[in-house]
Amino acid sequence: MDRLKEKIRTEGTAIGKDIVKVDGFLNHQIDVKFLHEIGEEFARRFEGVQVDRILTVESSGIAIASCTAPYFDYPPVVFAKKAAPNTMVEGFYEEEARSFTKGTVSRLRVAKQFLRSGENVLILDDFLAYGEASLALVEMVRKAGAQVAGIGIVIEKGFQGGSDKLRARGCRVESLAVIEKIEDGEITFGGGDAGE
Amino acid sequence: MDRLKEKIRTEGTAIGKDIVKVDGFLNHQIDVKFLHEIGEEFARRFEGVQVDRILTVESSGIAIASCTAPYFDYPPVVFAKKAAPNTMVEGFYEEEARSFTKGTVSRLRVAKQFLRSGENVLILDDFLAYGEASLALVEMVRKAGAQVAGIGIVIEKGFQGGSDKLRARGCRVESLAVIEKIEDGEITFGGGDAGE
Repeated sequence: MDRLKEKIRTEGTAIGKDIVKVDGFLNHQIDVKFLHEIGEEFARRFEGVQVDRILTVESSGIAIASCTAPYFDYPPVVFAKKAAPNTMVEGFYEEEARSFTKGTVSRLRVAKQFLRSGENVLILDDFLAYGEASLALVEMVRKAGAQVAGIGIVIEKGFQGGSDKLRARGCRVESLAVIEKIEDGEITFGGGDAGE
Repeated sequence: MDRLKEKIRTEGTAIGKDIVKVDGFLNHQIDVKFLHEIGEEFARRFEGVQVDRILTVESSGIAIASCTAPYFDYPPVVFAKKAAPNTMVEGFYEEEARSFTKGTVSRLRVAKQFLRSGENVLILDDFLAYGEASLALVEMVRKAGAQVAGIGIVIEKGFQGGSDKLRARGCRVESLAVIEKIEDGEITFGGGDAGE
């Protein structure tokens, strides 16, 4: 997605060899109009795929899922929570997800009532690195007896292997921009983002 | 907003005297189509008010802000973060906000570059209880030399005094549903939600 790569290049910041900061339109400040373009592009990539529900992770996935839902005729969106608030009293699916970028391990939880057997679930997330968060979501979907309709990623760091792991689990992955290298403040994109 | 009250009544759960759980459409599962109705209603309430930016708090404010931005011609949305990720390296505004409902104190942070002097900022949030989170956001807006254009709340717990505190600080508060009492699993709404 050329507009996305352009925005990453002009508005993103490369930090070291691993981190791209896109706080200006995705992770802190949100460009809602642009996220609607992202949503339309996901709909184009997954055209013809039945999507009964969108599943994402708080916090940065929420805006992406909210701006994508209209292009799939408003399926329910559910976001995995990273901590258990005192109001989550009923049963939930729980999976651990390590973030190598942040050096943290999160417990992701989704209430059982919001993932239903037989549903086709589109997983969306802002970044795909080592794939830990997405793998946790795939696990939850399958525990619920639902199917993964696909995984839509805004920015994949292709050199960290996440998409290979997800494809090995039988999932279709569509990444709108694939970064192959981050070096000396330069971001190099790969050709892995099919559909252009 | 009658549709909202109806949804709270039929889909919400009253817990004790203080908590209303609306995980089915707002705080865990998100009804994006309904949030667009919420966004339109905020636009109607704040008609004629200049809004240069929408400010909210992660996580539950993000979907509301994302679905409201289109009805204000897509101003930038920024959400206050509750913890400092390792990528927030530059200067930020920081305020503490106590959540009496959750029994926690959060440090809310917004990067200085995403709140600018002279802007008119619409603050949005899912719940207004004692007003701590909203007061923290008001404080940040003012420290940045910006103005509070207004505060839009989806569900106000009117008996906890938050809106009085915010009005005493000179802010216009528009709550789409005001709960006056929670008792024996029953939710009683007040007449404080002007505009109907």
